[in-house]
Amino acid sequence: MRRTSRDIRTANRYEVLRQVVAASPTSRQELAAATGLSLATVATLVGELLELGMITEVGFEDSAGGRPRGLVAVNAPGGALIGVDLAETYVRVELFDLALNVLARADEGVRPGENRPEQVVGRVATAVGSVVAQAGIEGARVLGVGVSMPGQVDRDTGVCAYAPNWDWHDVPLLDLLTEHIAYPLHLDNPLRACAVAELWFGAARGCGDAVVVNLGTGVGAGLVLGGGVHRGVSNSAGEWGHTTLVLDGRPCHCGNHGCVEAYTGAPGIMLTLRELSPASPLLHPGDQTATIDALARGVSAGDPVAVRVLEDTARCLGAGIADLVNLLNPEVVVLSSWVAAAFGEPLLDAVREAVARHALRRPLAATRIVLSPVPTDPVCLGAATFALEGALRPAGRRDGARGPRTGSRAPAPGR
Amino acid sequence: MRRTSRDIRTANRYEVLRQVVAASPTSRQELAAATGLSLATVATLVGELLELGMITEVGFEDSAGGRPRGLVAVNAPGGALIGVDLAETYVRVELFDLALNVLARADEGVRPGENRPEQVVGRVATAVGSVVAQAGIEGARVLGVGVSMPGQVDRDTGVCAYAPNWDWHDVPLLDLLTEHIAYPLHLDNPLRACAVAELWFGAARGCGDAVVVNLGTGVGAGLVLGGGVHRGVSNSAGEWGHTTLVLDGRPCHCGNHGCVEAYTGAPGIMLTLRELSPASPLLHPGDQTATIDALARGVSAGDPVAVRVLEDTARCLGAGIADLVNLLNPEVVVLSSWVAAAFGEPLLDAVREAVARHALRRPLAATRIVLSPVPTDPVCLGAATFALEGALRPAGRRDGARGPRTGSRAPAPGR
Repeated sequence: MRRTSRDIRTANRYEVLRQVVAASPTSRQELAAATGLSLATVATLVGELLELGMITEVGFEDSAGGRPRGLVAVNAPGGALIGVDLAETYVRVELFDLALNVLARADEGVRPGENRPEQVVGRVATAVGSVVAQAGIEGARVLGVGVSMPGQVDRDTGVCAYAPNWDWHDVPLLDLLTEHIAYPLHLDNPLRACAVAELWFGAARGCGDAVVVNLGTGVGAGLVLGGGVHRGVSNSAGEWGHTTLVLDGRPCHCGNHGCVEAYTGAPGIMLTLRELSPASPLLHPGDQTATIDALARGVSAGDPVAVRVLEDTARCLGAGIADLVNLLNPEVVVLSSWVAAAFGEPLLDAVREAVARHALRRPLAATRIVLSPVPTDPVCLGAATFALEGALRPAGRRDGARGPRTGSRAPAPGR
Repeated sequence: MRRTSRDIRTANRYEVLRQVVAASPTSRQELAAATGLSLATVATLVGELLELGMITEVGFEDSAGGRPRGLVAVNAPGGALIGVDLAETYVRVELFDLALNVLARADEGVRPGENRPEQVVGRVATAVGSVVAQAGIEGARVLGVGVSMPGQVDRDTGVCAYAPNWDWHDVPLLDLLTEHIAYPLHLDNPLRACAVAELWFGAARGCGDAVVVNLGTGVGAGLVLGGGVHRGVSNSAGEWGHTTLVLDGRPCHCGNHGCVEAYTGAPGIMLTLRELSPASPLLHPGDQTATIDALARGVSAGDPVAVRVLEDTARCLGAGIADLVNLLNPEVVVLSSWVAAAFGEPLLDAVREAVARHALRRPLAATRIVLSPVPTDPVCLGAATFALEGALRPAGRRDGARGPRTGSRAPAPGR
């Protein structure tokens, strides 16, 4: 609850590294100017990041007259980070270098009926082995594995309290993963993954208060408040999909009625289409991706049914996002995940209009609404960032991380 | 955005003083145990608070064998704090000692047609002069004046951007007040005032994440996130009253439809009563207080119309509070302000039931819902706490505070 000096130091480490990632090569002087930290503090933090092998000295900058300034850059090959996106029907694993470039990717399907915890964990272990082999790196260079698990996750115990997709209850996921994976593991959910991806590499960089709206099968909001991810007292903050938009409205799978998700999640959008045009050729029953893609193409082509579905969806999204704007007064709202990516600009435009109709003037004027600029799978990127943040924390902090079973510390980044 | 070491020091000062206020007399050892800070840090902070005259040494504790432990307590007469509650029809001013006991109170009516900024500022100046005279203290002992202004307030410039009650636009309130009041001034809104009152003296003490739901003519939520008040990027966070509960529902004075406030603010509750029973003797047209009091008495007496109004109101409140629980995952939700106080336990019981029907299981299990335990006007108390926080900040920080016009610093607390 109360932040300590160590938390501040960790946050400052994050900020300096974020800035190096954003603008390599760069000097200590530029970092001080960009972060607002003193040059002395930046020098100390740069020293620590050099020591950790996260960044590297890359020469000197010409300066007119004065002493030449040393330049640093991300030490891309200094270590590897792995991000795991557990989705309803697939497991995607990506391996990144320290500049967060994707070096390898593995996808494993999860068939209905093959989603028991042991089966899923087996898929993850296979895919993790595959990306390490593909990238041709030594295991010792892997700084950690971040795992995004949709549902309610207890970071400290590593237990998945509830996962609606697979009907998991109280699954000790981290313990199961630790039996197969020897790297430090960090577990959290996709809302948090997308939020840290935007905070480190996307539209929320440099923002104190930001909301990352995830539009997929489920919908939710990753909250960045006061410059850090807001998790809540039991790490379940962000369930914006289950806030009421229409009292006594459509039933939602959570048991409530009229939830934002019931109108704006992919199944909700399909229901809107079915209500408008039950026999629409755009409708691919049982296939969310195909239906959303068909709708997106229909919008581009001016198909009136597709346009109407987009408008109805944007209207609900707009009212729900206006709630976030009025309640949290963020600097930026980022539309993320596959439904947002599929619809793109037409959805953004319609959402902006709808938010402007619903939000109060003062917070509206302070907010930008944008599509996620993250070019890769934001969930994998964010999950890998959990591992990066873990590697940056001073020793002795767990915060949901789990070391290898042998009890040995993770090796230092390759040097 | 980024917290600095100075912010941490200020936050730790707040926390130690809060703990001294809660448990005077107390020892440095007890303070360390209660706050989780090191004994060395506590000793430094206690030294600073002694130096500021906020606390005082009050002898020694018997300890079995060891060195006797020095005890400290709040130095109640060491200074005075003034809180100003600007409401639609009145100005209330209270003067507190440093233990936040009310020493004097003044109420000034604001008649319709007499609510121009100069008129209201004149009322405030009169009432401030009155409480200082009543309390019989020297002006030099007044550490500051906190002012709660309903509406959208820019703390840094001291401008009231918009006040719906009086239709004020861009009023330079702090400048106007500074012409009449020579004490350091701190301006913010009632949501923030009620939140800091609960954080310092009420149900949110010791909580990282809390929501203080204000139920009055308007409704809103004061947000305590990460141990501090969340203000948002333009200090307008907390407009929960203007989140949509019923898409296309009742018109709201904000221009939107179906807002939480349209159903749960005092005028919304009166409308619910009128819809149910247009000729009800409980209805006092044009008098919110009398109507809410009559409804509260009716609920106690088992009047079926009153009970039905309470149930309908609690149902909307429950859905809206469940939204806050699902989105923010707080430790406690506090029901505050005069409508909550008027209905009391029956409202609390009905709201708890309704929240339980709407919220997700995990965040619901982590949340307590309580009535505000603050025994006095929480807005005055919170406004005075703005002044207390201002006096505890290291010199050189403004944060919305304004010193006297002469440019002289406020005098140190009386010693």
